[in-house]
Amino acid sequence: MSGNPAPEQSTDRFADDPAFAVHEGGKLSVASTRPISSIEDLALTYTPGVARVSSAIAAEPELARRFTWAPRVVAVVSDGTAVLGLGDIGPAAALPVMEGKACLFSEFAGLSSVPIVLSTTDVDEIVDTVMAIAPSFGGINLEDISAPRCFEIEDRLRERLDIPVMHDDQHGTAIVVLAALRNAAKVVGRELGDLRVVVSGAGAAGVACTKILLEAGVGDISVADSQGILHPGREVTGTKQWLVENTNSAGFAGTMMSALEGADVYLGVSGGSVPESAIAAMAPNAIVFSLANPTPEVDPEMAARYAAVVATGRSDLPNQINNVLAFPGVFRGAIDAGATTITEEMKLAAATAIADVVGDDLRPDYIVPSPLDRRVATAVAEAVAACAREQGVTR
Amino acid sequence: MSGNPAPEQSTDRFADDPAFAVHEGGKLSVASTRPISSIEDLALTYTPGVARVSSAIAAEPELARRFTWAPRVVAVVSDGTAVLGLGDIGPAAALPVMEGKACLFSEFAGLSSVPIVLSTTDVDEIVDTVMAIAPSFGGINLEDISAPRCFEIEDRLRERLDIPVMHDDQHGTAIVVLAALRNAAKVVGRELGDLRVVVSGAGAAGVACTKILLEAGVGDISVADSQGILHPGREVTGTKQWLVENTNSAGFAGTMMSALEGADVYLGVSGGSVPESAIAAMAPNAIVFSLANPTPEVDPEMAARYAAVVATGRSDLPNQINNVLAFPGVFRGAIDAGATTITEEMKLAAATAIADVVGDDLRPDYIVPSPLDRRVATAVAEAVAACAREQGVTR
Repeated sequence: MSGNPAPEQSTDRFADDPAFAVHEGGKLSVASTRPISSIEDLALTYTPGVARVSSAIAAEPELARRFTWAPRVVAVVSDGTAVLGLGDIGPAAALPVMEGKACLFSEFAGLSSVPIVLSTTDVDEIVDTVMAIAPSFGGINLEDISAPRCFEIEDRLRERLDIPVMHDDQHGTAIVVLAALRNAAKVVGRELGDLRVVVSGAGAAGVACTKILLEAGVGDISVADSQGILHPGREVTGTKQWLVENTNSAGFAGTMMSALEGADVYLGVSGGSVPESAIAAMAPNAIVFSLANPTPEVDPEMAARYAAVVATGRSDLPNQINNVLAFPGVFRGAIDAGATTITEEMKLAAATAIADVVGDDLRPDYIVPSPLDRRVATAVAEAVAACAREQGVTR
Repeated sequence: MSGNPAPEQSTDRFADDPAFAVHEGGKLSVASTRPISSIEDLALTYTPGVARVSSAIAAEPELARRFTWAPRVVAVVSDGTAVLGLGDIGPAAALPVMEGKACLFSEFAGLSSVPIVLSTTDVDEIVDTVMAIAPSFGGINLEDISAPRCFEIEDRLRERLDIPVMHDDQHGTAIVVLAALRNAAKVVGRELGDLRVVVSGAGAAGVACTKILLEAGVGDISVADSQGILHPGREVTGTKQWLVENTNSAGFAGTMMSALEGADVYLGVSGGSVPESAIAAMAPNAIVFSLANPTPEVDPEMAARYAAVVATGRSDLPNQINNVLAFPGVFRGAIDAGATTITEEMKLAAATAIADVVGDDLRPDYIVPSPLDRRVATAVAEAVAACAREQGVTR
């Protein structure tokens, strides 16, 4: 009895792409941490011994934190509506991404993680489902859920659950972007508060990046969606209305390109394509973060001709803005501290910890650590746990 | 960063019971089956490589069976309302039992399994929740859900899902009871069809045992609940009405004790206590299966003075009726065959396979294999898979 099905024989049309070989039979495995090789083992792991543990927890619920795996398991929850650059591909097709996320939780943070892909895209049903299964888990990582539904789902779950909940497409990205911008500002000898930033994209990542940059003290941020810069003359609602009220102190009202003139920072989290003239018109020593994957909004080679620092989401270029620098350590730290939530301060602490790993090695092409740098998750976890304890948001 | 919390120091009140040591930090772990030690590994397991796999599945959904782990993962779902002999102890206290079940799936069948304990006991909400998370799994093992809710929940999920769904408290128990009764009948030189059986208990296990014994050809079964034998004069509904209509051809109308007079088989799945006089009044060469745990309804030593074959649920006595003989192999076989359901015939095949493992070693105190016998899950899986293919209930 083997865990994987036999691969298709002879003319396997997937044989040429190693990504398919890696995914053959899936990428995760659940195993018992206790050997069961005697009747005694069986009687302790299962009946009748387990009944004594269950009874103890029934009498004293907090014992579940010590005697079950739940507090150390993260559910990676997705409805498959906004998967990578692929869009709404549904739960089955989203599953390899969620499995990949769980692999990274395991590899980088030593956390068990279970992909939960959903057959519903209804906000109420998603919230109800996660609430119903929540006693099984110690944290909820929301993933690849389309905006604006992702905002409401995260808000409602954060309010109702007393375990860490984080939509990684928002906050994981935002944490790493802030870490990168901290170090990029150092490279060009600037303070965060003095930078004028243009964010292209008002979806999950754009909103969260804008919020964390504001919290970190960036003074002047203009955000553009596909219709141009968000300003008080635009008729918008919800999160975009919030952006109208809290950004664009410079008062831009035109296209994203016009706002880029003289700007210090371009942050692309939208896809699309930015012409060379717009990048050429930015301020001297400009910073360009162009995160669309696999095709950045700004051609990285072109950007390098004008900007002092260039970062992308791509693994084959320097300065990769990769969420894996944030989420494993954030959840690990929150769980280690017994945190009941993930606060804004914990996210800021995570960003600083990531930036600090670079330390004295800081260079224009090394503003964030490698995604494989094993120091990162440990540093982030320690910073996040310390912050949670300091804020008193622990059990 | 270690996976488990530090045990309580100094005066640990749990130090004397090894069951608690086994449960420290939980009993399960999820790990990546692919090493991630290079940027290339990361780019294949996660972005950008995973996008090619997700795209392929989006275009051709059946590829999810090959390139995700879902088809080989069993969810062990419980609302914690009927846990072992402990009753309604809730999801957190039920979790150690579900973890134990997942350990056994892994150890005996090589299947990954994830405990899902629920914060709701509402039938509609349980069905909706399992439907919502179903794309994440290849099978649903319902566990420790109280009767009669368990019947409706299983029926509705079986109807709506095209993956194996089984409430183990019903069918796992029933399969092993049938296996044991097949061999016990051989020991006393009787045919199943000639036996008169009294079932004590009309809950999940009692109903399922009665049904499978009827299907296997046992001719005369009387079922008792706490009010006595179920007969046409009783005002009952639902599953009990079904029992009234389909059992008790002998027409008993009194207490369970009166029906035991001259009976060949006592099957206790109820708890409570049966007096010596009732067992003494059974037919010669009687068979007593007394499954309440940890205290069997019939004292096993006393029973041995009257009955030719005695079986219990206890691991410290011979002839242990343990579900672990059934569920790992049943799900493994169903999954190996790509079965879309678990049919009655597949359960009957599982029972025969378990009974056959005993083979020529059959003795009054060896009517079922040891729960540790590794041949069992393999034999059950093969029989179940063959039956599924024969019936054409596969993909």
